[in-house]
Amino acid sequence: MADIKVGNVEALGKPLGQYSHVTRVKAGEFLFIAGMLAPGEGFDAQCSGVFAQIAEALKSAGAGWQNVVQFTTYLVHSQDIPKFMQWRLREFPRMFPDGRYPPNTLLIVDRLVQEHFLLEVQTVAAL
Amino acid sequence: MADIKVGNVEALGKPLGQYSHVTRVKAGEFLFIAGMLAPGEGFDAQCSGVFAQIAEALKSAGAGWQNVVQFTTYLVHSQDIPKFMQWRLREFPRMFPDGRYPPNTLLIVDRLVQEHFLLEVQTVAAL
Amino acid sequence: MADIKVGNVEALGKPLGQYSHVTRVKAGEFLFIAGMLAPGEGFDAQCSGVFAQIAEALKSAGAGWQNVVQFTTYLVHSQDIPKFMQWRLREFPRMFPDGRYPPNTLLIVDRLVQEHFLLEVQTVAAL
Repeated sequence: MADIKVGNVEALGKPLGQYSHVTRVKAGEFLFIAGMLAPGEGFDAQCSGVFAQIAEALKSAGAGWQNVVQFTTYLVHSQDIPKFMQWRLREFPRMFPDGRYPPNTLLIVDRLVQEHFLLEVQTVAAL
Repeated sequence: MADIKVGNVEALGKPLGQYSHVTRVKAGEFLFIAGMLAPGEGFDAQCSGVFAQIAEALKSAGAGWQNVVQFTTYLVHSQDIPKFMQWRLREFPRMFPDGRYPPNTLLIVDRLVQEHFLLEVQTVAAL
Repeated sequence: MADIKVGNVEALGKPLGQYSHVTRVKAGEFLFIAGMLAPGEGFDAQCSGVFAQIAEALKSAGAGWQNVVQFTTYLVHSQDIPKFMQWRLREFPRMFPDGRYPPNTLLIVDRLVQEHFLLEVQTVAAL
């Protein structure tokens, strides 16, 4: 497997959520995953669906959460930011038991491909 | 050339457009292309211009469409989503004759650098 | 260090700002940096803060500006576009003394994680 070091930069203080400042990765093989969307009523259902799909995409390459080197998360409603924070607070410790959460960039955009989608997550992994 | 495998993940169903779920790439050399914009009246003209520019950027590195490992597409108007879908449906089979379309993330944002731009596409390729 | 060639594509004309068309990079090691935000009154203060943080993140991996292969910049207000252009015009020549500015994609989005943030920059570097 790739040599992946997820970590924080002391000079930047403590991250304000379930993410790290940087991933340093020595790898010859990468996995680029299309932005994932999931149906579902409400933010939590969609969020669980999106990460379940990313898990499937990783699995298809024999990889897992520990292979992720970058997330970019797009939400449609700023009111969902606390729900996203809560979801990660609840679920990420199980997905990333060593507490090394990948870097994330969180953006609020106008809309996704269909109006009912509330979030999309783009993922890069190293194999 | 890099060993690039563009493919879908059975557990995720069929992609809803001209894109694939993942790219798996074994490469020692990557090409990062700035987000491309193109002038032009109307969405189709700009979209053709944007992809023509990406083609030039790829060509400058001796590469072509088969080298693309990730697209991220930003549209300004959600009304242009069907136009983007139609454009890909019409043009991508010629650009990607093997039908292996790169993963894409499609986002609707507020605006691009100048008000008349309707779309921007960011591309990563492997050489 | 990675073999990084930042350059322009003649067929695309001259870039309209402090960025280049492409980075071609032969590297076995990459650094993915989470989107950086900085507190501060006004755009210039935040912009300086954001790039100071990216500098710290690079430094933590023994890297510097010359290692950056891609920026993606998110602004909240289109009125800040000229301020961003001015900031780069003023500061980038010092940060990138050889004038090889990394490719950038500039997007105007709805909002960032907290309402007072005016810009966020996501960075990929090669080591």
